Amino acid sequence: MTVSPAYSASLELDPAFALHRGGKLEVRSTVPVRDADDLSLAYTPGVARVCTAIAESPELVNEYTWVPNVVAVVTDGTAVLGLGDIGPAAAMPVMEGKALLFKEFAGVDAVPICLDCTDVDALVETVVRLAPSFGGVNLEDISAPRCFEVEDRLREALDIPVFHDDQHGTAIVVLAALQNAARLTGRSLGDLRAVVAGAGASGVAVSRILLGAGIGDIAVADSKGILHSGRDGLNAPKEALARDTNRAGLTGSTEHALAGADVFIGLSGSTVSEAAIASMARDSIVFALSNPTPEVEPAVAARHARVVATGRSDFPNQINNVLAFPGVFRGALDVRATTITENMKVAAASALAAVVGDDLREGYVIPSPFDARVAPAVTAAVARQACEDGVARR
Amino acid sequence: MTVSPAYSASLELDPAFALHRGGKLEVRSTVPVRDADDLSLAYTPGVARVCTAIAESPELVNEYTWVPNVVAVVTDGTAVLGLGDIGPAAAMPVMEGKALLFKEFAGVDAVPICLDCTDVDALVETVVRLAPSFGGVNLEDISAPRCFEVEDRLREALDIPVFHDDQHGTAIVVLAALQNAARLTGRSLGDLRAVVAGAGASGVAVSRILLGAGIGDIAVADSKGILHSGRDGLNAPKEALARDTNRAGLTGSTEHALAGADVFIGLSGSTVSEAAIASMARDSIVFALSNPTPEVEPAVAARHARVVATGRSDFPNQINNVLAFPGVFRGALDVRATTITENMKVAAASALAAVVGDDLREGYVIPSPFDARVAPAVTAAVARQACEDGVARR
Repeated sequence: MTVSPAYSASLELDPAFALHRGGKLEVRSTVPVRDADDLSLAYTPGVARVCTAIAESPELVNEYTWVPNVVAVVTDGTAVLGLGDIGPAAAMPVMEGKALLFKEFAGVDAVPICLDCTDVDALVETVVRLAPSFGGVNLEDISAPRCFEVEDRLREALDIPVFHDDQHGTAIVVLAALQNAARLTGRSLGDLRAVVAGAGASGVAVSRILLGAGIGDIAVADSKGILHSGRDGLNAPKEALARDTNRAGLTGSTEHALAGADVFIGLSGSTVSEAAIASMARDSIVFALSNPTPEVEPAVAARHARVVATGRSDFPNQINNVLAFPGVFRGALDVRATTITENMKVAAASALAAVVGDDLREGYVIPSPFDARVAPAVTAAVARQACEDGVARR
Repeated sequence: MTVSPAYSASLELDPAFALHRGGKLEVRSTVPVRDADDLSLAYTPGVARVCTAIAESPELVNEYTWVPNVVAVVTDGTAVLGLGDIGPAAAMPVMEGKALLFKEFAGVDAVPICLDCTDVDALVETVVRLAPSFGGVNLEDISAPRCFEVEDRLREALDIPVFHDDQHGTAIVVLAALQNAARLTGRSLGDLRAVVAGAGASGVAVSRILLGAGIGDIAVADSKGILHSGRDGLNAPKEALARDTNRAGLTGSTEHALAGADVFIGLSGSTVSEAAIASMARDSIVFALSNPTPEVEPAVAARHARVVATGRSDFPNQINNVLAFPGVFRGALDVRATTITENMKVAAASALAAVVGDDLREGYVIPSPFDARVAPAVTAAVARQACEDGVARR
């Protein structure tokens, strides 16, 4: 398959293509190799002494290789952004982007790994085999419900942090923004009834972190409507959610559930009518997070809601995973955590929320991704919590 | 397992350890991410357009990602340098070293991948799954005879270059040095009878490339003596070599075979006596390539041989793979070769030999690894030959 020069040239009129030409990453040496003396230290024969020392004291791999600072950004290309199952090669630009954000925001070296397999066993097996090369694994854009089992099994199998960012990165940032929105409106999470549209990777993880944080009640909807314990044919994660959520016993559509609700969190790619937003309780909070098209236009939502957030950089309150994942991994790697605990995620959210501080207002419940205080704050909180949770190795 | 601070401090007295602290590589962004505008091009939403284009025209992965410039340096840690089976973690310093040489000498981005599996099926399967992320695969330090099957099956399965450097990198540099040594002594390869000590990865590949180049005769010895068609219990690669070499029907030891031979190539880690070297023919050529201890001390060999080469940087004529692999991959990647043919390896050797040119003398049959002409010459020759062989995709 070849691409015509004319087609190629036409693409370059789009600045995104011009920027992506040749890719966005490079691997560089951090040591000099100017002459035979340098070569004899960095490579043979000097390197043999380092290898021997690691073979005798495996812990030294963390002192004398780049492994403890390297995260594999792993995908199978089955749920890339809102594009769906576009395969591993077409997923690469996103994984490169993720890797460069790791480096730029937290000094983490990240390697994009796009795998040509989608079977859960194969994915788990492959990442386990790769593990000696990496200090952590960031799972990315793997479709639900496989993503849950892949992450669970990898967390079980490996003693390095494994983190599915579509789940937990989103969950951390949503929790932070919701904590601040609650504070702004003089309430605690326990006072809030939330409706989550979407029961994929992010919908499940957001619901779980909110349950853990003590949300008053929460109803989760997939494309067939609200999850409730009477619904048949649910996959395991949805069945568990149906059991643990929706104390009000709601059935029917997302819009139906929104009547009188305090919080709407859209993670679905669907749309919600202005009337449904208008039917929410006073001081309502609307996080319309689908990209590039929010579930409800923020200007429309703002007619009725007190706080509005989206996933987009061109509106206030951008809920963006880059607020979380660089600092989460930086903190976990810094203390060589064996895993990322629920407490560490909650600590990351609290640290993120705290960056806003006394500047809290309707249009500022979450910091900008370019706020230089964010990554250090998240890093410190995650590292501290890892030590408290007993999962730090130094 | 932990390492005492005192032990750690004592290691740092060795400059190789000091240099290796924190590893030798980093992954960096090649595009700016200073503000929300940059982010919207390098990441969402801009990146989605690039992903969509690749999903529609897979060939575009070579234009808009780093994939076509990235080589996976893959090992299972079973045959690391002369250290043997030290495992994947302890192999990492060598793989990092390899990766930095790829970048420094040829601008190739290389990622060290140390795999926690040694079964041939598992290795092949894993690398096939990884392949969408890479433009080429450099296999490294995988023990014989598994390395032959792993490489053969990966070459069959993948449409990107797969190259086991311990085999072919060594073979290319040895062929180049031997071509020049023959020229210096007024002979052609067809005039030479060679003895190769070692029938592992490099011994087999060196023997194969010399056979292809028309060496007069060649006898290959493993630890049990010369391979000949009457020997039982040989693995498949050795059995094939026994059939294709040793027209003189020699049996017995390496030293026995050296009587009257023109060339000795040591790839075994064993030793050869001065008397055996002395028994070789006039104008003999001795490549004692084991590291760090050559099969015969170069000063001793020089009493009898016309040309002496080693693998060490502290003697003349250093036979070092870094003379070959950066340019081989650079040339193959530049034309998006689907494979590395035998002709491409021979072209690399001839280009490498030609760098020496009219400066040819006993102490200079092969260029220095730091000769800036080497990588461009090898690159050009390999790319040209790929086009002639019909394996180039551009």
